[in-house]
Parts: sequence; C-alpha cells; structure tokens
Amino acid sequence: MKTVTVLGATGSVGRSTLDLVERAPEAFEVLALTANCDVERLAAAAIRTNARLAVVADESCLPALRDALAGTGIATAGGGDAVCEAAAMGADWTMAAIVGCAGLRPVMTAIRAGGAVALANKEALVSAGEVMTAAAAANGATLLPVDSEHNAIFQCLEPGNRDAVRRIILTASGGPFRDRDAAAMHAITPEQAVAHPNWSMGAKISVDSATMMNKGLELIEAHHLFAMPSDRLDVIVHRQSVVHSLVEYRDGSLLAQLGPSDMRVPIAHTLAWPERMATPMAPLDLVAIGRLDFEAPDPVRFPALRLARAALEAGGARPAILNAANEVAVAAFLDRRIGFLEIAAIVEDTLGRYDPGAPDSLDAVLNVDAEARRIAGGRVKIGV
Amino acid sequence: MKTVTVLGATGSVGRSTLDLVERAPEAFEVLALTANCDVERLAAAAIRTNARLAVVADESCLPALRDALAGTGIATAGGGDAVCEAAAMGADWTMAAIVGCAGLRPVMTAIRAGGAVALANKEALVSAGEVMTAAAAANGATLLPVDSEHNAIFQCLEPGNRDAVRRIILTASGGPFRDRDAAAMHAITPEQAVAHPNWSMGAKISVDSATMMNKGLELIEAHHLFAMPSDRLDVIVHRQSVVHSLVEYRDGSLLAQLGPSDMRVPIAHTLAWPERMATPMAPLDLVAIGRLDFEAPDPVRFPALRLARAALEAGGARPAILNAANEVAVAAFLDRRIGFLEIAAIVEDTLGRYDPGAPDSLDAVLNVDAEARRIAGGRVKIGV
Repeated sequence: MKTVTVLGATGSVGRSTLDLVERAPEAFEVLALTANCDVERLAAAAIRTNARLAVVADESCLPALRDALAGTGIATAGGGDAVCEAAAMGADWTMAAIVGCAGLRPVMTAIRAGGAVALANKEALVSAGEVMTAAAAANGATLLPVDSEHNAIFQCLEPGNRDAVRRIILTASGGPFRDRDAAAMHAITPEQAVAHPNWSMGAKISVDSATMMNKGLELIEAHHLFAMPSDRLDVIVHRQSVVHSLVEYRDGSLLAQLGPSDMRVPIAHTLAWPERMATPMAPLDLVAIGRLDFEAPDPVRFPALRLARAALEAGGARPAILNAANEVAVAAFLDRRIGFLEIAAIVEDTLGRYDPGAPDSLDAVLNVDAEARRIAGGRVKIGV
Repeated sequence: MKTVTVLGATGSVGRSTLDLVERAPEAFEVLALTANCDVERLAAAAIRTNARLAVVADESCLPALRDALAGTGIATAGGGDAVCEAAAMGADWTMAAIVGCAGLRPVMTAIRAGGAVALANKEALVSAGEVMTAAAAANGATLLPVDSEHNAIFQCLEPGNRDAVRRIILTASGGPFRDRDAAAMHAITPEQAVAHPNWSMGAKISVDSATMMNKGLELIEAHHLFAMPSDRLDVIVHRQSVVHSLVEYRDGSLLAQLGPSDMRVPIAHTLAWPERMATPMAPLDLVAIGRLDFEAPDPVRFPALRLARAALEAGGARPAILNAANEVAVAAFLDRRIGFLEIAAIVEDTLGRYDPGAPDSLDAVLNVDAEARRIAGGRVKIGV
C-alpha cells in the first residue's frame, strides 16, 4: 500500500488523480485531501476514498465541511496552516495541485517531509525553483513532474546517463493562434484565447498557451527539474500534441514520450513510479492520427518565449517577476482591461522596472511576487 | 577499457563499428577482427586498431592475410573454426555482423563466452531464436540488438517494467513500393527493388524491405529478444524512418526512439551500453524533417508480413524455413529467374511442403535450413 495525499483534490488534476486512486483501492491508502472551499466535492471524495483527513484552505468553509463529514470518522480542519499540516503527514506520495502561489508553502512542506511529490503547480517551480530543488535534495524527496512535457522528459531520462544528454526538446502545441497573422493578433478576444485546440484546461493556462508564455514557464521549470542550462533546452512546435517532449543523447538517439491528451497518463506515471499502473484510457492510435508535424516557434509573434528565456538565463528573482506580472496581465486580459498583445508588454515592462536580488527563502520569493504584482497592476491601470 | 571483437569487420556494420571504436581509442581495446576474404580492408583495420588477432573465414585467403600483416605482431588465422576461436576469446563486447547462416556458429560461441553480444545478424535470431536466447540466459550473456528497430525497442524498455508493456510497435518504412498499385507489382525489377528510400543497404535486405519480409523477420526477432507474444507485437508504416520503433505501456504512455538513418546510432548505443558515447553524426533536425506519417501496413500487397506472423505463431522450425526459403527466392529474384511476387509465393509454397519438428540444437537448425533451401531451390527451377 502506498499512502497518498492530494493537495488541491477538487480541481482538474486533483479529480483525475482521485479517479486513478479509486480504481486501485488495493494499492493506495489516502491520508489527506485538501481543497479551497468546494466542500461538496471534497467531502464526497473523502468518503469514497476513506481518507483520514479533509482540509479546506478557506477557514470559513470549515463548518460546512464538518457538517458534510459528521459521523464518518474522517477528521476535518481549515486554514492555510491546516493545509500545511496535511502536507506534513508524511505520505509516500503527495500530489501538489494547488494553483498559484497559494500552493507554495504546502508544496515546500510536502518536500520537507521527504516522500515523492508529484508537482502540478507550475508557479512553485518557476518562482521558487532553486529553493525547492535544494529542499528536495536536502530532504531526500523525489520531485515527479505532472505537466505532460516534463513528465515526458522524466520518462525519457536514463537515470545513469544524465551527463550524456545533449538537449531537451519541449514540444508546444503553438496554441490556437499558431497560424494567425501577426497583424491580426491585437484583436484576439478572451473567448478565442481560451479555446485550446488539444487540451481542455483552465482559462489562465489556456491564455498562457495562446501567448506561448506557458512554454516559457515550462523552459524555466525544466531548467530546475533537470538541472539543464538554457542552451540545452529547446522548444519545437508540434501542433498535434502527441509527442509530449524529447530528450536527445550525445550518441544521436532521441527518446520521446507519446500519449493521448489526457492528464491521467502523466498522473498515473507519477502515481505508480517507479512502476507502471494500468489506466482506463483508450490507447493512442497513431494510424488514426496519421501525421505529426514539427516546426520552429515564431519569436516575433510570440515574444513571451523570448522574455521567459531571458528570465531563465538571468536567474535570481527574474522568473518570479515574469510569473507574477504574467498572472496579473492574463487576469486583466480575461477581464477585457487590456488587449492580447499587452500581456507580454506588461510582463516586459515590469521586468524593466523591478530588479531585486536573488530571493534566498520562500518568504523572499513571496515578497518578490507581491511587489511584481503591484507594479504590473499599476501598469494595467495606466497602460503600457 | 572495454575489450572488443568484431565478427564481420569488413562489411557495412563492421566498418561502422570500427569507425566508432577508432574515434575512442582510450575506451576500447580490440581483441579480434574477422572477415570472409576482404584481406586488404581487414589487415588495414587490424593495424589501425592494433588488434591482437585477424581471421579470414575463407582459409584460401590466409596466405594473403599473413603477407599483409607480416612484421606487425598481429596474429593471423583462417577457416570457420578460427572465426569461432576469435569469438571465444571472451571480449567484453562482441559485434556479431557476419551475414547469413555462416554467422550462426560464431554468434553462439560469443554468447557462450558470456559477454555483451551486439546482434546485427537477423538470420541468427530468426532461425535459432530459442536456442540463442536460452544460451544467453544460461551463460549470463547480454544480447544487444543492432537493427535500428530492435535497438529502439531496447532503449524504450524500462528494465523493471517488462510486465507493464502493453504492446511493442515496430515501424516500417514500407519500402520503395508502399504507394505502388497492386496490379503493377508483378513488373518490379531488381533495380527498382534495391533502391530503398531511407537507408543505404545491401541488395538482399533491400529486397526484403521491398517485400516487407524484412519487417516480418523483425517481428520474429522481437518475439525472441523481448519475450513478447505475437498479439503484443504490431507493425506500423512510417515512411520517414525517423521513429525507429515504440513501446506502449499499460498506463497509456508510449516511449519511442528517434534518430538519423545512420547505423552508427544504434551501434554506438550497443557499444557504450549501459552508458552513452559521443558520436560524430549531425543531430536529427525535426524542424527540417517537418512531418512524420503513420499508416497501417497493407496485408494484400505485402503477403510476406502475414507469412512471417504465421511462422512466428506456429514457432518450431517454421521461422527457419521462412528465412531459408526467402533467402533462396530473393537470390533468384536478383538473378532475374523469378518475378517480384514469386518471392512470397515460393516462401509460402516451401512452408506448405516441409513441416519438421522443432529443432532443439544449432545442428538441427542448420539441417532445417539446408532442407528448406533445397526445396525452395527446386521450386525456383520449376516455377510455383
């Protein structure tokens, strides 16, 4: 039996995780499930999986959770500290799927507990990559990437041959505007931007995919996860999203991971690692897909990729600023307060206005994050 | 230092192997090189690599070899037994690249010596698969496949997760006639058949690729190398020959190996295994390639695939008969004694006429091989 905790159990990744856990009750024992305030879904999941503990991050939702779980024997708790306590219970495997900077502290707590931590929170690695990988090394924790691209790379890396890697190649769908004329990009609406061609995702990440900032953030994640310098990290546009990423070795071989566009595939890989579990998805049908295309990304129409690579190369606080300014700008775009092309412009502007030293702790990262949001928010108001 | 012996050092695979060995003289020490009778090339290679022993299989060529190596201190020998003695010297790594059934005994000798044996001889595995894999297991030898497809599969198999493999998918270029009308296939000439679109190969294997018997033989090889039943072995046509094969796991992930169409890539993998060595080839450029296509093989135009799968499923002597009859038929086709479509017809006819019990030794395999050749030869003369 593997003990399992899911931080962010009611979101898309959390629900996919529980779908897999519930299909193999003989293999997994659930310690804790956490959510922000989706009491109905959290309580139902806790009962189905016979979890020991259910936690809501929003303390005001705790009474409703208590009511929902009365008489079940499942313990309840509320508030940010309670989420961290759930993360500290020492599960063999923890899914870190809390979105945004709210997930940073619980992820770090899980890492310090030293088990396997499946990472679905991009912001954590982008903003606090060095802090997190250092903590993982110090505590013997294993970081298992859940993002389809990084999970693919993890699968393609031979443990004994890390030094033999010539290049990591992240694939990018190119998003819904990969074929759009540069002249027509200023008119893109939020509705157009959230309609991703291959994956069903939340609004924020769909916009990141449309600007290709998503791939930029993934470059930074890959740098931290795989200790790879920028000049050995490439991006290639692959519109079918069937090849999730590739690793090229110095002998000329490339290993690639392919799979259906279903997050349960990478989640199952992390859940069973180092073994492999059965999943219910239909196998990939390469004959039906028929054709896989590859092209170079366009740095002119997608400046976010350039900004992210520059932030990665400069290091220190730059990735955290990039990420924070992007979150503010994407929210403003979804609110129709700025246009599509202004997303990257606000990120670039914020990076130009704020250049603190490298943060050396989680608190320092959170301070950089807050200040970058303040600056980016100001630029949203007055325009760039 | 890894000690190395190359059986078949003057052929295409042997020369590619030596190219890699000579680029890393600090890593490899050459014990023995063998050839049939290409004395000039063999002697030059023995001198360049400072080999201890050079052997010609054709004893009539030994005097010329002695002359060529006089005064170098490199020992010389001639004849089939001498080739086996070279194979028995106990190199850490042996390349088995002697073409056809002539390679069977030396390969078995190298396997019994217990090192790593890089297998470039298809016929050996097809005809004597059970005998060879049993000998490898009994002597602690590791079989490292050199064929680009099997090498790809070897790279994609996770040692601890063999039971988690759902399917192995061999890619096939489809050969030069993949788009040819069935009605026009009877008129195919040897010149057309040997013009392979992606690889530069010998005439026999080029014809096998044109009939897709090559892929049928590879199915049988994969069965033996990876202990996989027929219903978990698939073939997919992939005209660009960039993806060399794939392994599908039960969790929905597929791992694939990609690389340039250069035999030095799989050879280098076997030579450095379990590490990876640097090679001089230009990296694969997926953007320049642009597009990868996949389609199902056509069982009507390519009956060889069906014959091979039936031989694999029946087991026993059937694969050896298939292979022997095919060699005779391909030679007759290259000699313009039979037409292209008669290759598969002669194989099928021979399989229908000869059905001995399963061979349990190398001698029994060689007897089956000789009898199948006699029968197939007779059919070539009188027509099917």
